Amino acid sequence: MALSVVDSTLAPALAEAAERAEEALDRLLPQGDEAQSRLYEAMRYASLGGGKRLRAFLVMQAASLFHVSPRAADRVAASVEMLHAYSLVHDDLPAMDDDDLRRGRPSCHKAFDEATAILAGDALQARAFEILAEPDTHPDPAVRCELICTLGQAAGARGMAGGQMIDLIAEATALTEAEVTRLQLLKTARLITWCCEAGAILGKAPSSLRHALAGYGRDLGLAFQIADDILDETGTSEELGKTPKKDAAAGKATLVALLGLERARSQARMLADQAVGHLDPFGPPAEKLRDLVAFVVTRRM
Amino acid sequence: MALSVVDSTLAPALAEAAERAEEALDRLLPQGDEAQSRLYEAMRYASLGGGKRLRAFLVMQAASLFHVSPRAADRVAASVEMLHAYSLVHDDLPAMDDDDLRRGRPSCHKAFDEATAILAGDALQARAFEILAEPDTHPDPAVRCELICTLGQAAGARGMAGGQMIDLIAEATALTEAEVTRLQLLKTARLITWCCEAGAILGKAPSSLRHALAGYGRDLGLAFQIADDILDETGTSEELGKTPKKDAAAGKATLVALLGLERARSQARMLADQAVGHLDPFGPPAEKLRDLVAFVVTRRM
Repeated sequence: MALSVVDSTLAPALAEAAERAEEALDRLLPQGDEAQSRLYEAMRYASLGGGKRLRAFLVMQAASLFHVSPRAADRVAASVEMLHAYSLVHDDLPAMDDDDLRRGRPSCHKAFDEATAILAGDALQARAFEILAEPDTHPDPAVRCELICTLGQAAGARGMAGGQMIDLIAEATALTEAEVTRLQLLKTARLITWCCEAGAILGKAPSSLRHALAGYGRDLGLAFQIADDILDETGTSEELGKTPKKDAAAGKATLVALLGLERARSQARMLADQAVGHLDPFGPPAEKLRDLVAFVVTRRM
Repeated sequence: MALSVVDSTLAPALAEAAERAEEALDRLLPQGDEAQSRLYEAMRYASLGGGKRLRAFLVMQAASLFHVSPRAADRVAASVEMLHAYSLVHDDLPAMDDDDLRRGRPSCHKAFDEATAILAGDALQARAFEILAEPDTHPDPAVRCELICTLGQAAGARGMAGGQMIDLIAEATALTEAEVTRLQLLKTARLITWCCEAGAILGKAPSSLRHALAGYGRDLGLAFQIADDILDETGTSEELGKTPKKDAAAGKATLVALLGLERARSQARMLADQAVGHLDPFGPPAEKLRDLVAFVVTRRM
């Protein structure tokens, strides 16, 4: 099995994607010394200068399978990174997961204040949708609407926000393995799935290929969340850039808590194999997406 | 001046718009007994069963000037009412304006809890954009993208969220009249302006008419905010459905605080006259929009 061998071309590809995402974010985030510049600063603080840019990488790689222009892919990548950043800012709030540390720095409400953090998240979400609607994102407005419609589903009450709601309820109740999987599907995997689908939407790909990428994203997203929960259990604050073992302390529903470390690891490996299987129709151009799967399940940070 | 005479056809028109908005919201908000149904309930609690539906009325009236189908207008009206509802939910949070009462009922975080209220606001915003992107909103995807792009601007860091940021900062600093006007332009008038422009966008109106409606919305929005601040100063909790004199107690920057009641009233009347002037190109079909101006500056609730 190739999972333990991470191709040496992946690291520079991830670094390049992160750089492109950073540039696009810097260009597309608001800036200036208007009366509300504190809000701009908080949005930039939450979005720039950190993170693995996994979602941006997925958009760029999936888009490249259909020869989408990098400029278009970078805008979509920046949009989903803003959406992801908003979700982290709100998740870290005292009323939610109450986390003081994010990406090795004070979380947004610690660096600014709670009200500013709430507003920064809100404005990041609005900007994410606005960017997708702008003509520079794709010449065909039907493509832009499809991106927005599917992102709304992935981020909203039947997606990420719904998953976070279940997560909060789950702190008080015991969930079954199936329920935890559904939680993680909504909270994490749906947005990751969207990143992969977005490449196909931008490239006006046939639906069979779009579905293959969606399947890849779903399994990768679930594997990623399990790996994240394993890291939360085994990693240090330095490795994680956030407070470790917070989930266990909060009684959060994770597969690690439910199945134990070893069975959770084997579940992640099974999902990883499935994810790679979905890429068969794409041949060699999907090599970096295959490598990413191994990276995700073996990463230390 | 006609401002003191509210046409007797306005009240039933407002009631009809409110009913249409309520029906569209009920249809378009998520519902079901999934694991995250608490989130659906909070979204519905925050959006349904209350409010003047001023924004929905503006969308519907502006759209009718261009013979847009009521079905399309109702979807756009529901979308902006969701966006407005999200902003109220987040504004009422303890970290923001800390208000326990909204539309005569416990505010969302009191009826549910803070975390649920934050998520409900987030999910309402996502749904608002998603609705606009759906094909049922307009057959032309370029129209849908224009709606989304302009709503993103009106709601984001250079619009409503930016205005709320200035409002929070203003509690600590003294603003000039021009600065307060800019705050209210961003916080309130930009979304109201969008409602009027949305009708023109849906109707593919010539830009001169779109600009006329935008001018109307801007002046109406500013007049509305002054009227709101006057009510905050003079109204009772029963009339308002929220806690009165909170703004004054919080040292909020309002024109009432800056100019006094009488000068604030005359400023509102001047803006109202200007708003009505923008409607000249539309003739008799804009009568209800004219009547609304009088209603807004003379209302008691």
